Amino acid sequence: MSRRTLVALGGNALLQPGQRGTFEEQLDNVRAACETLVELIEDEHRLLITHGNGPQVGSLLIQNEAAAQSIPMQPLHSCVAQTQGQMGYMIQSAMDNVLRKRGLDLKTTTILTRVLVDQGDPAFTTPTKPVGPFFTEEYAKQRQALGETYMNDSNRGWRRIVPSPTPLEIVELEVIKHTFERSAITVAAGGGGIPVVDERGQLVGVDAVIDKDLASSLLARLLNVDMFVILTDVTHVKLNYMTPQEKDLDHLSIQECQQHLAKGEFGTGSMAPKVQAAMEFVQATKKTAIITSHTEVVAALVGKTGTRITP
Amino acid sequence: MSRRTLVALGGNALLQPGQRGTFEEQLDNVRAACETLVELIEDEHRLLITHGNGPQVGSLLIQNEAAAQSIPMQPLHSCVAQTQGQMGYMIQSAMDNVLRKRGLDLKTTTILTRVLVDQGDPAFTTPTKPVGPFFTEEYAKQRQALGETYMNDSNRGWRRIVPSPTPLEIVELEVIKHTFERSAITVAAGGGGIPVVDERGQLVGVDAVIDKDLASSLLARLLNVDMFVILTDVTHVKLNYMTPQEKDLDHLSIQECQQHLAKGEFGTGSMAPKVQAAMEFVQATKKTAIITSHTEVVAALVGKTGTRITP
Repeated sequence: MSRRTLVALGGNALLQPGQRGTFEEQLDNVRAACETLVELIEDEHRLLITHGNGPQVGSLLIQNEAAAQSIPMQPLHSCVAQTQGQMGYMIQSAMDNVLRKRGLDLKTTTILTRVLVDQGDPAFTTPTKPVGPFFTEEYAKQRQALGETYMNDSNRGWRRIVPSPTPLEIVELEVIKHTFERSAITVAAGGGGIPVVDERGQLVGVDAVIDKDLASSLLARLLNVDMFVILTDVTHVKLNYMTPQEKDLDHLSIQECQQHLAKGEFGTGSMAPKVQAAMEFVQATKKTAIITSHTEVVAALVGKTGTRITP
Repeated sequence: MSRRTLVALGGNALLQPGQRGTFEEQLDNVRAACETLVELIEDEHRLLITHGNGPQVGSLLIQNEAAAQSIPMQPLHSCVAQTQGQMGYMIQSAMDNVLRKRGLDLKTTTILTRVLVDQGDPAFTTPTKPVGPFFTEEYAKQRQALGETYMNDSNRGWRRIVPSPTPLEIVELEVIKHTFERSAITVAAGGGGIPVVDERGQLVGVDAVIDKDLASSLLARLLNVDMFVILTDVTHVKLNYMTPQEKDLDHLSIQECQQHLAKGEFGTGSMAPKVQAAMEFVQATKKTAIITSHTEVVAALVGKTGTRITP
């Protein structure tokens, strides 16, 4: 009996800070992650892999801006779709080659994924998520006149801010479920999914960014996977992060998650959505979620490191 | 019993000459194509949709060039993966909304697709396929020193030329087959597929463009579909195209295809690969292929227009 495990790869699994972001760099990074993940596969996990796309969609937005005189800029939701193609390809390439090296004849698949959000989500009236490059104030004001929102990001310039609405439904759920049941490794819901709303019965793309951990949690719950693993840069969820009192957490109950989140203990753009995503999964399924680093996932699964969230 | 039909959409189904290529334009174009294709679905065809990506990958290459100072250029094969995400999303969006308007509760899916080619394919020593923007001679010479090939395209400038190797295997065949059996509409092998070669057991992406009609024909043969439909800008394959003796062909036998192809009757970059793709399918399966325009597909299927290729 194989275990059905959803693994959410952080953006840094593909593009690390300080790297320029060549295709080869990203492929090397994801290959390193796959070298670890393949140990789970050998341990009879079937994997559903989701991934962030922050650096990649940021690069695409810069490329769109740079050529805007001759090529019409694509909307953000179309750029998310592009990164699902690009990153699914990189993850499949890396994983296939690790599998081939180990003599494992297993198939990988990427399913393009849209995620339904609510037009009435309060996120649409108060955008919070910065995306893409930094601009001058003059340019930001021009774009704001066209309906986009920009914010002055301390000393670094003006940056576009988009809504980050709550994921409600996975449009491609049925095919993801079916592929996951049949394939060893399925890649889906990249970048949190392509955000769409239901406008009088029609599905319409919207310029927003869905948190990839919250989208992954929704997918994990809807598929009732056996385990939900969120990979990031650190081995543990920490209390008092970056202070002398910093403390690794080996375990979090749902109640502890709720208390820490209410107190604003975790970084809003980083660890808080991960803890919330894990908590929502554990609450709904009574199963276990793990938050740990890309390199420590195998050790974390046998309880040697990482933060376990349990009912 | 539903008929299993592979429909290859031409690049112009999404981006027409003279259009700038905004997301909305492309979505409108593909919606018009879907309004026709949905009639096939109502007539009990299950559809496997492939598509070209010439204009879209060209736009991406221009965007890559424009931002090359700050964002490393992605290789062509990664750009193909991006267009599979972008165009699969557009085709699914358009099709879903046409289905919803007609009250049809059917699912659409896009499967990211790699296509294996042979490193020893003669196409790699004699690149023939122009891609991307026009450059100055100076820039072209610089890039040639890095191993790329450029050609002076009459008066329009220098353009990159890439190999167009023969498609040999569909890496994701199994999952495409399975999804096609279960779903009403599956999108796959976009842009002819992401070209990969087998380098000592490892799958490695290569900078090449696989003809989308030849890749579609391979997929149609491997899945033994009931009918292979190639959509383009004209209602018929023509003899003496653009001359006073121009003549629509209602029907082509395999022998006639071979004769006309041997004489170079059809345009090498346009109609010849379509006729060859259709012919290869008919030869292998003893079934029927149709070449016609996006708007006439329903009439063509009942024999009122289009060119039928039969054994």
